[in-house]
Amino acid sequence: MISDLHEVFSLSAKGMKKSVIRELLKLTRRPEVISFAGGLPDPSTFAVDEVAEIAAEVLATNGAQALQYSPTEGDPKLKDELIAHHEREDGIKLSPENILVTVASQQGLDLLAKIFVDRGDPVIVGLPTYVGGLGAFNSYGADMIGVPLDEDGMRMDLVERELERLRKRGEKPKLIYVVPDFQNPAGITMSEERRLKLIELARHYDVLIAEDSPYKELRYEGEPVRSIFALDGSGQVIGLHTFSKILFPGMRLGWVIADESVIQKLVIAKQSTDLCTPAFTQAIVAEFASRGLLGMAIEKVKGIYREKREIMLKALDDYMPDLPGLHWTRPDGGLFLWVCLPEHIDADELFYEAIEQNVAFVIGSAFHCDGSGRNCMRLNFSFPTKENIVEGVKRLAKVIEAHEESRRTTGDIVATP
Amino acid sequence: MISDLHEVFSLSAKGMKKSVIRELLKLTRRPEVISFAGGLPDPSTFAVDEVAEIAAEVLATNGAQALQYSPTEGDPKLKDELIAHHEREDGIKLSPENILVTVASQQGLDLLAKIFVDRGDPVIVGLPTYVGGLGAFNSYGADMIGVPLDEDGMRMDLVERELERLRKRGEKPKLIYVVPDFQNPAGITMSEERRLKLIELARHYDVLIAEDSPYKELRYEGEPVRSIFALDGSGQVIGLHTFSKILFPGMRLGWVIADESVIQKLVIAKQSTDLCTPAFTQAIVAEFASRGLLGMAIEKVKGIYREKREIMLKALDDYMPDLPGLHWTRPDGGLFLWVCLPEHIDADELFYEAIEQNVAFVIGSAFHCDGSGRNCMRLNFSFPTKENIVEGVKRLAKVIEAHEESRRTTGDIVATP
Repeated sequence: MISDLHEVFSLSAKGMKKSVIRELLKLTRRPEVISFAGGLPDPSTFAVDEVAEIAAEVLATNGAQALQYSPTEGDPKLKDELIAHHEREDGIKLSPENILVTVASQQGLDLLAKIFVDRGDPVIVGLPTYVGGLGAFNSYGADMIGVPLDEDGMRMDLVERELERLRKRGEKPKLIYVVPDFQNPAGITMSEERRLKLIELARHYDVLIAEDSPYKELRYEGEPVRSIFALDGSGQVIGLHTFSKILFPGMRLGWVIADESVIQKLVIAKQSTDLCTPAFTQAIVAEFASRGLLGMAIEKVKGIYREKREIMLKALDDYMPDLPGLHWTRPDGGLFLWVCLPEHIDADELFYEAIEQNVAFVIGSAFHCDGSGRNCMRLNFSFPTKENIVEGVKRLAKVIEAHEESRRTTGDIVATP
Repeated sequence: MISDLHEVFSLSAKGMKKSVIRELLKLTRRPEVISFAGGLPDPSTFAVDEVAEIAAEVLATNGAQALQYSPTEGDPKLKDELIAHHEREDGIKLSPENILVTVASQQGLDLLAKIFVDRGDPVIVGLPTYVGGLGAFNSYGADMIGVPLDEDGMRMDLVERELERLRKRGEKPKLIYVVPDFQNPAGITMSEERRLKLIELARHYDVLIAEDSPYKELRYEGEPVRSIFALDGSGQVIGLHTFSKILFPGMRLGWVIADESVIQKLVIAKQSTDLCTPAFTQAIVAEFASRGLLGMAIEKVKGIYREKREIMLKALDDYMPDLPGLHWTRPDGGLFLWVCLPEHIDADELFYEAIEQNVAFVIGSAFHCDGSGRNCMRLNFSFPTKENIVEGVKRLAKVIEAHEESRRTTGDIVATP
């Protein structure tokens, strides 16, 4: 081994932090812990039998191709299915040149960061935002500028202020990164008005928008809002998509949609990254979609998660203590909701008290590029069983009550600013 | 779309070139072209039936896990099989902490470059070397230093000279990148003496070695040489491996072996790159290996490629014109051999003449970081049929003859420097 490994790491590697979430998740692995921490789909939604049948057919009819190298851009048949999917879901008209199939949308984020971000380049992100987005941009040295969300999504008055501030310095962000539908972590959906304002700002300030849409199809109530990609239609928006939440994550299949000029650069970047996405899994999902099973799979997922979301919301209503400042979002879809505790409660501290009581969540600060959000927590309702959702919320409520009680009795209240 | 897309690309993206090979391959797609250009395995080697049966079983017995997110480090069962494989093949003793499962070895190269290479960092590579290695290092802005190969592999006297030259400037390379067994593209195997010298130099100059071994298991004659990883045993070497050539490339499964401290950093880098390698494909290959099918699969591949290599070598002996300077390597394994033309023949030019005669190869210059090697070509013998190997070599021989004839008649010989 060399004398000083750390010294030879790249700036990127030196700046890489162990994922806080990953480290905390390790503490949640005891079977007695009810975990709202992960972001896993419910395995009962997986179309296991259909996949088994299709895998056998793909191999029997086309094994030589399914196990061979394949085009970096993605399987043409899968692309055709994606084109149909976008037209059906959102009225978007795409051609194959607008699509790159990726190893799920995390690779889309990595490749976007790779082709756009140099060390120190500004990128606008939400406060809070998806932690994998922060990780990808961080790994290329981006200077993240956080903009708070309210109940209608990212605040465009503040986006404008940041764009103007950068403009005065002769700079502009490489990307504005948003998760507009049932945002991870906050569960908030960006209103159409905000989306249109975002497009207007992006055009005015000549900036690209990265729209990350892993959950868009999973709406349980209310009217869909058109994607920013669809509302724009001018190539200002790059869309990131994945099968991880609507089908299953275990094949790691996602895709990017964008103007052909952006896709071409992403393809070149992907060549040196992994040559191509697995032909085998692409062939299976393409066949799955071509049999018309995708829409049915999405309906099944929606049915299961709609009920789990109801159960979690009801349990929160029923069991959470009545504390000033304690509130949570009521997402219309997706996998997560967001609990804000009274300002004086530190969720990073509360996490360990919760683990002792066998319930887990993700601390809010992990989703904030500026380290704020320490009084918040993300709760996942897709993975735990219905019974565990109720029991886990009860435990969590007790943890918060005990935390407040101990604070009152120790007089901590005086010391808190 | 924004006003000037090129302007907002990262330095990395601005420096990315379209792969010359990829662009040339497009010309070879006409069915009448016999292509020695690609590096594809022969699909008759794919264990299609076994994979179909195992995929069905994996889904039936463990579908919920096989279609779910999985550890970034890789499937523990697959890692156990890889540990056994390395012990069997090369006497290496590994623990799970020494292994990261990757989306084939190209991702291993990308992650290595990501954690070690900053813009301008020197990396020593072979002249020639694997073009995907060049692509990965280039995408992070490495300053590639090429060192020629002779019949025993990379010339260590020249490696030492480069290391000394850098040392005098207070620098050292981040990596020395080698493909020691049946090298792509040259088909050359590094002698044990050279491997030991490389380890000695790496220790003396405090530099890591990246040993890329996609073909090591595919030896058709002669005695195996122990891997540099095995000969070292001190953690100085990072090994890159893949199932692409010994099983099939269509699941994109590979792995990196290294000291635990390096693996830990690679794991963090992989998290922001794609979260994890597909659980589904890992479960299939783990089960495939645990049934003892891996060794049998490798024997099958070797049998097929040994014969194809013989046929190509015999055809070259039989049909190639007797030109001073025209020679080729006789690889003991792997997928490729390397033809050097007389110095005055430009293989970049010859390529187009060959395509007109419906035969294709890869130009040698694509494998040289300094643009040299223009009189060389890489020939693949794994993918074309036995009949097409003979016919293709005949065509190639005629193309070379015609090229020389035209040169003689046009008096080009005088003008050539």
